[in-house]
Amino acid sequence: MGIEIERKFLVKHDIWQQQAKPAGTVMRQGYVVNETGKTIRLRITDTKAYITFKSGTQGISRAEFEYEIPVADATELFDLFVESGIEKTRYNITYQDKIWEVDVFSGDNQGLIVAEIELDTENEKFELPPWAGPEVSDDEHYYNSSLSVTPFQKW
Amino acid sequence: MGIEIERKFLVKHDIWQQQAKPAGTVMRQGYVVNETGKTIRLRITDTKAYITFKSGTQGISRAEFEYEIPVADATELFDLFVESGIEKTRYNITYQDKIWEVDVFSGDNQGLIVAEIELDTENEKFELPPWAGPEVSDDEHYYNSSLSVTPFQKW
Repeated sequence: MGIEIERKFLVKHDIWQQQAKPAGTVMRQGYVVNETGKTIRLRITDTKAYITFKSGTQGISRAEFEYEIPVADATELFDLFVESGIEKTRYNITYQDKIWEVDVFSGDNQGLIVAEIELDTENEKFELPPWAGPEVSDDEHYYNSSLSVTPFQKW
Repeated sequence: MGIEIERKFLVKHDIWQQQAKPAGTVMRQGYVVNETGKTIRLRITDTKAYITFKSGTQGISRAEFEYEIPVADATELFDLFVESGIEKTRYNITYQDKIWEVDVFSGDNQGLIVAEIELDTENEKFELPPWAGPEVSDDEHYYNSSLSVTPFQKW
């Protein structure tokens, strides 16, 4: 079990567009269980797949249990067990020695770009990249699990 | 993914008691998802733990996806995600070159003993051991997932 401590920011599209970017990873995520404070997620990329249990939200921390599973299994499980999903392309951007995960959503969440930074402690300090906009860590609308049910384009 | 083909029988207690038995394995199972034709199960023994997805029932066959996970994780996940569970001791008994899994339930299912045989095809022939009673393969009351919600002692 790990504790996940994350802060999340909207991304300023105009500055992000001009940013040099590494290759992104297309990922599909589906929720097998999607309740407040309790999710089971399947994540599938071209080459890897994971089943992830997340529990509880206390501030910006959550308990997380993640297991890699075969992509072929995950694809079948997706069809059999997933009720709602999202698609996005993830870019890992290093800024001031920290890795930011920038998610460019597609499908029903097209138009939404968010950036996350994973921290070791809740009070850890870090520098904001120039393309980082308002913080939305506490806004449940931006949870991937919420976006799978109420996508950005329907807000 | 595997296909699980299983037949299940009640056990004649009087004959079973006289039977020579190997050491049993105490197992705790809990259901994270427990819907008709769709279950996610945690199974924990002293030394091993598994997360298992089962989907669909067509006759006696089911799609099954099983992953071993650390016992410590499973114990935490059990507390966080499980809504209903069962406890039993499992004995693996070889009879006529086939392995039978005999489950002696405890807790709220005390008094119930069932035996399962896993087959390669639905029509595979096998010999019934002397302690095997009536077949209950098709009776949903005997599904472990059902027993976790409506235990034997409340029937």
